[in-house]
Parts: sequence; structure tokens; C-alpha cells
Amino acid sequence: MLSIALVHYPVVNKEGRVVTTSITNFDIHDIARAACTYGVARYYIVTPVELQRQYARRIITHWIEGSGAEHNPTRTEALTNVELMTDLAAVGEAIERDFGRPPLWVATSARPFANPIACGRLREMLGNDAEPVCLIFGTGSGLHAQIIEDADYVLEPIRGPRDYNHLSVRSAVSVYLDRLLSVESPAS
Amino acid sequence: MLSIALVHYPVVNKEGRVVTTSITNFDIHDIARAACTYGVARYYIVTPVELQRQYARRIITHWIEGSGAEHNPTRTEALTNVELMTDLAAVGEAIERDFGRPPLWVATSARPFANPIACGRLREMLGNDAEPVCLIFGTGSGLHAQIIEDADYVLEPIRGPRDYNHLSVRSAVSVYLDRLLSVESPAS
Repeated sequence: MLSIALVHYPVVNKEGRVVTTSITNFDIHDIARAACTYGVARYYIVTPVELQRQYARRIITHWIEGSGAEHNPTRTEALTNVELMTDLAAVGEAIERDFGRPPLWVATSARPFANPIACGRLREMLGNDAEPVCLIFGTGSGLHAQIIEDADYVLEPIRGPRDYNHLSVRSAVSVYLDRLLSVESPAS
Repeated sequence: MLSIALVHYPVVNKEGRVVTTSITNFDIHDIARAACTYGVARYYIVTPVELQRQYARRIITHWIEGSGAEHNPTRTEALTNVELMTDLAAVGEAIERDFGRPPLWVATSARPFANPIACGRLREMLGNDAEPVCLIFGTGSGLHAQIIEDADYVLEPIRGPRDYNHLSVRSAVSVYLDRLLSVESPAS
């Protein structure tokens, strides 16, 4: 049982300062569609800013109950498992309430950390389904160091053949979900 | 040598009708950043609409030469290999001019087609580097059937554990690039 949390505070900006980022429409949709494709249980959007949660709720409601539901039912389906949360503590409580146990927290980062967990290993753990897992993603230039320290694991960073690794958070979520939950194509 | 082409015409909409889609800002940035991360040679944005190409060129110029370059140099780097093209024929000519041979065309689709090429097989071919490869992505609800027919290969669709597979094109590009060009993390 995998959930994901997209954190808008506390995250850092390019200069390393702690900031609160804004929720973007593409983060809501792209990540919800990827989460739905890969069978993610819940997609938690985390921000302490009430106005931001209201903004996101309005978009989600449009697609679940409003005219959007008729216009594009695949969006409706994708957004059904999205929840708006004030902080990670609330995410932990929601997971414990809905899935019977607090989650194993796995932070993600583009930077290398000591002793990361490999995607293959986490994929195995998810296959065993012993406990709920929550993958934490940072917006802006990444998660605050405290979140990474507090996590049970840090996932290995995504690497291509070059030093450049500035994936959008939307891309990073998609790639990790594919590594953790993809199913082989019957024909391949 | 892998390039990617993002096609805005001819593509189909939800109802299967042939349409021209608009270039979106997130398609420019997210895909350019993924392409740069995975060492893609060129990212071609394909539309016959001159005004659309002008719009994209203005955005790209802002980040390469304008105030954006100072503000965020990683965007500058990502956008350096983006080219605007009228159609796939022009993409083929550009690849032949820059890389000495016309490309092997590999179409992508969320729907299953007979005899797809597996990602693992295409990864091997890219490792041998015998000829340039151009991966074709459709916006809207996917590539026109004629592009898929004309391609040398169709890549296996991305699958999760469910029937739902409505990834954004930004997610699909990221996942395929990871499958084809990722490098293992040293620590994993």
C-alpha cells in the first residue's frame, strides 16, 4: 500500500531558504493521473495555507462533482483519491485511520544521501505489503532537511548519464512510481 | 543518440477526431528538463501553427538569453536543445543534418498495438548507438493513426496494476526516458 505526499511547506528554494510554495494546477492533475495509473492508494497535497487548500479543493470538486466530471471522467477517477492536508502529521494520522497502521516514511531527494534505499528494495517491500508506505516529495528545490532526517528511509536519487538532474517534481513522481509499481507489458 | 518529438498535429482528441493542440508552458519546461537529465540529444516541439511556434520561441528565448537565464541557469541548460519544427519531415531532416543519418522512428501510445518493441530492447539498441532514434509523443489523446503506421516501431505501452492508464504526456516522456536511459545509482 503506497501513498504519496506532495509537500509545499517546509521546503527550500534555490538559495536553500525555507519557503512555502504554491499549489499548481499541473501538480494536482499530472500527479493524480500518475498515482491512479500506478494504483497509489492516496495522493496527499500538503500545505498549511488554508487559502491554498481551498484553491485546490475548488479544482478537485470541479472535476469530481462539477461540469468537469461529465467532460472528462478519467480526471474524475484520478482525483478521487486526492486529499488536502495541513502537514505530514495529519497525513500519518489519515494513513493510520484508513489503513490500520502509521506509514513507513520514505523521503525523496535529487541530492545523494548516505545509505539510501534502492528502488528495487522498496519495490520488494511494497510487494510484501507488510505496512503502509508514504513517499514524500518536495516542491520548490526540495524537502527541508528535517523531513529527510525524520524519515525512515531516503530513496535513491534518479540519475541519467549526465550531472544535470533537475527533473520537475511531476517527472520525479512518475519515474519513481514506474520503478516501484509498474507491471510488465504482456507483449514485452 | 535519442531525440524526442512532441507532436501537436496530427493528433486525436477524446472523441478520436483529428485536432491541433496548443503548446503548453509545462510541456516545454518539464519535458526539456527530463530530456536534459537523461541526455536526450534534441527535443523537437512539432506544430504547423506559426503563432504557436512564436509563442514557444518567446518562452525559450526568455530563459536562454533573457532575464530568465540569470534567474535560473538550470532552465537555460535544459532549453538549449529544444527546437521548434513544423512537422516530422522537418524533424527527420534536422536529425539527418545534425547526426548523419535519418532516424529510426519509434511511436508511443497508451493503447496496445501488435508487435510493440519492448523498452529493454530499445535500450539495448540505444546502447549500441548504431543509428539515431526519434521517439514520437502525441499531445491531446495521442498520435494520429497514420504516424503510428508510418513509424518503424511502436513502443510498448506503460502499464500499472490497474486498467487506468491516462498519464499526462509529461509523465509518459519521463517514464520512458527513465526506462531507456537511466543510470544506476552508485549506492544502490
